[in-house]
Amino acid sequence: MTPTVTVTDSVQLAKAAKLAFETSQLLDREERTRALNFIKNELEVRKSEVFDANRRDMELALVEVKEGRLSESLVKRLDLTTGDKWGSMLQGISDVAALPDPNGKITYASELDDGLRLYRVSCPIGVLLVIFEARPEVVVNIASLAIKSGNAAILKGGKESTHTATILSQVIQSGLSKTSLPKDYIQLVHTRQEVASLLSLDRYIDLVIPRGSNSLVRHIQNNTRIPVMGHADGLCNVYLDATADRIKAVRVVVDSKINYTAACNAAETLLVHESLLNTLWPEVASALISHSVTLLCDETTLDAIRSKLPSGTEKYVQPSKDDDYETEHLSLIISVRSVSSLNEAIKHINSHSSHHTDSIITESEANASTFCRGVDSAGTFVNASTRFADGFRFGFGTEVGISTGRIHARGPVGLEGLVTYKYVMRSEDEKGHIVSEFGVGAGKKSFKHQPLQIDSLPF
Amino acid sequence: MTPTVTVTDSVQLAKAAKLAFETSQLLDREERTRALNFIKNELEVRKSEVFDANRRDMELALVEVKEGRLSESLVKRLDLTTGDKWGSMLQGISDVAALPDPNGKITYASELDDGLRLYRVSCPIGVLLVIFEARPEVVVNIASLAIKSGNAAILKGGKESTHTATILSQVIQSGLSKTSLPKDYIQLVHTRQEVASLLSLDRYIDLVIPRGSNSLVRHIQNNTRIPVMGHADGLCNVYLDATADRIKAVRVVVDSKINYTAACNAAETLLVHESLLNTLWPEVASALISHSVTLLCDETTLDAIRSKLPSGTEKYVQPSKDDDYETEHLSLIISVRSVSSLNEAIKHINSHSSHHTDSIITESEANASTFCRGVDSAGTFVNASTRFADGFRFGFGTEVGISTGRIHARGPVGLEGLVTYKYVMRSEDEKGHIVSEFGVGAGKKSFKHQPLQIDSLPF
Repeated sequence: MTPTVTVTDSVQLAKAAKLAFETSQLLDREERTRALNFIKNELEVRKSEVFDANRRDMELALVEVKEGRLSESLVKRLDLTTGDKWGSMLQGISDVAALPDPNGKITYASELDDGLRLYRVSCPIGVLLVIFEARPEVVVNIASLAIKSGNAAILKGGKESTHTATILSQVIQSGLSKTSLPKDYIQLVHTRQEVASLLSLDRYIDLVIPRGSNSLVRHIQNNTRIPVMGHADGLCNVYLDATADRIKAVRVVVDSKINYTAACNAAETLLVHESLLNTLWPEVASALISHSVTLLCDETTLDAIRSKLPSGTEKYVQPSKDDDYETEHLSLIISVRSVSSLNEAIKHINSHSSHHTDSIITESEANASTFCRGVDSAGTFVNASTRFADGFRFGFGTEVGISTGRIHARGPVGLEGLVTYKYVMRSEDEKGHIVSEFGVGAGKKSFKHQPLQIDSLPF
Repeated sequence: MTPTVTVTDSVQLAKAAKLAFETSQLLDREERTRALNFIKNELEVRKSEVFDANRRDMELALVEVKEGRLSESLVKRLDLTTGDKWGSMLQGISDVAALPDPNGKITYASELDDGLRLYRVSCPIGVLLVIFEARPEVVVNIASLAIKSGNAAILKGGKESTHTATILSQVIQSGLSKTSLPKDYIQLVHTRQEVASLLSLDRYIDLVIPRGSNSLVRHIQNNTRIPVMGHADGLCNVYLDATADRIKAVRVVVDSKINYTAACNAAETLLVHESLLNTLWPEVASALISHSVTLLCDETTLDAIRSKLPSGTEKYVQPSKDDDYETEHLSLIISVRSVSSLNEAIKHINSHSSHHTDSIITESEANASTFCRGVDSAGTFVNASTRFADGFRFGFGTEVGISTGRIHARGPVGLEGLVTYKYVMRSEDEKGHIVSEFGVGAGKKSFKHQPLQIDSLPF
């Protein structure tokens, strides 16, 4: 039975999160790294308790699978007890603990007047509400990222992982309670009803991070005033330019499509310059078919290869429909279209892609540059697989997700995406600084605006 | 009569804006600065036409004033023909044109592998929808900022300025048409109905910037999925710490309150450490009263000065109500409260202020540091007037507004607030780069993640 949640409960919870955040700002930043170490120790000690809860979730999920209400792949994602998932989860905590603190960095500093200095310094956002799928290790992963970046967080995982998520959040709170950080720094909620109440509390919650489908992200955006950093679908394109190199084309197209088809950075559409229809295109098509990829082709690209298909492979080539170019296949399927120019390719991508990551295969410096300027996506790649769009591969050490929005953080998001900034100004003048002394006219001062080179706040 | 606007019109308009944005990305960036110069020339040539339209708006507004439906101050803001408003508006275009381009800056660059380089480069956001008050010069101001930063914009000003705004936007489009930039780069809409339709078009519009009241900003946030960068109220506090210097306290409090009472960065609440009740507080109170400021005091601060008030000034001191500490007075009124500690001051500010700008008057290095960390506001100032919170004073050259959100851009926003970034990756390997060559195990490559020092894209 789902517990009844009143709006008052959600307000208390959100208030507690805000208070925990505000309290944490007065503590030594090192306390956050200590908390991560305590949480890791606590998890090691209580491993069997967590595994028991996880087995309970699995049993319940298997019943659902038997009755056809849940997919087998979900059960696999739910399982924390097999493979190296547990070990990776613990290692992830150490990895995040070891990353540089994204806070306290000066990104702008200026002497406005003698003795009046302005600093723009990175700082946490506040309270995060993170909504994610039924993968229990994500509870620990997101909690680590929030703690490291100095944000309080309210977490909501998929309901199938409830028992595991509950014990994990207890362990996290128990680790926090060994430090001076409030245990309400990380809280867990269980129901959609709670999320619905929380979405109205823009006074206490500063950012919502939904990870999942486009429809989840849109649903959240439709129901809150709180800013949303969505992690949704990827509809990535690869464009074979007229000057494309043969080997690069085959390697990058195949890798982009087949390396991990379920990922948001896998390619879903291939655009082929019409000059390649009888040369490179059949070669790329044949490479894709040899990896069991089905090609949904427009008339031109279909005609170009129809007669060249080895017998038995005809089923891998089919005519496309218009909406195939707007579809995230997430499987061994790719939509294919010919274009008559680079500009037509850019136009197709801008109007059909999800502005995630798009790649051009070209030997032309000018076309590479035009593509990267003209394609309005978080990632524009040249002769490289779309699958490189990833926080770890980019060198961020960890990944909050891949933002499909373009405000605040775009593309793969590291810890930097969980901070904002504030302006700190300090007068060291013996009478303090006031605005009415500045301006035009006799006796008025003017601003110096002298840039300062400085790495951290001097006080 | 208000023209009937169909949803189709709005879709056409938004589509045209998006297309104009996308087209502009392929043009030389210098074209934007050229456009600003053409617009300025065009305005100089057609000054009398603009003034005629402005006089028509003024006549209509004066009728409304006579019938009590409009305030005199609005008419004053509407007037473009008197004082140096016209000259300042034209100068503003040149100032923006002369600012450094916020685009094309590399903020992260890394060599991921031999011949595989990643660059994070600043770029425009896309299409902006900007909603503002009935001040016609803002049309030109915002258009300049949008063009300079490479964004297309749809503008909606207050309805009283319709005639002036219409001719100004025609002049802007005429200036644009002398360049290769599309004239739909800047478009004007007139009705709330159009705004309502546009708010649903998150496919074409990337950011909404409402400038005005809290209620306007909340209304917009409640009615769109598009990210909102709001510019709303400021409820700024000044805190007199136990160690406050006498002269700094009087000067900064008075300047913060009276320098320009209608501004969002004016002080609305004064917090007084209880140790100052019989020493510094009466002096500050008397300075404020000498500038005709009314003090709304809690019991403690009221008791401390009641017997010391010079005769005839009693009317300037009144008991406060709870909601006075949540009120943006925007006039010669200030709410006053005593606090027993720095922590209590920080708590009061975090729960009552609008997280805009708050200032501490202190001689204690430790208290200054605690205040700046603990107060969760866009600006935390030490011994300096809250009135310094301003894009020009900060040295940004211009100001889009002062963001009261904390995502993307916080506090005074310069041109930087109108850009986002994209990741550009380029392989110069002879076979291109694919993900499946990286990993653990025999023959697999690992990432170098070697930071690169570079200022602009090399291609």
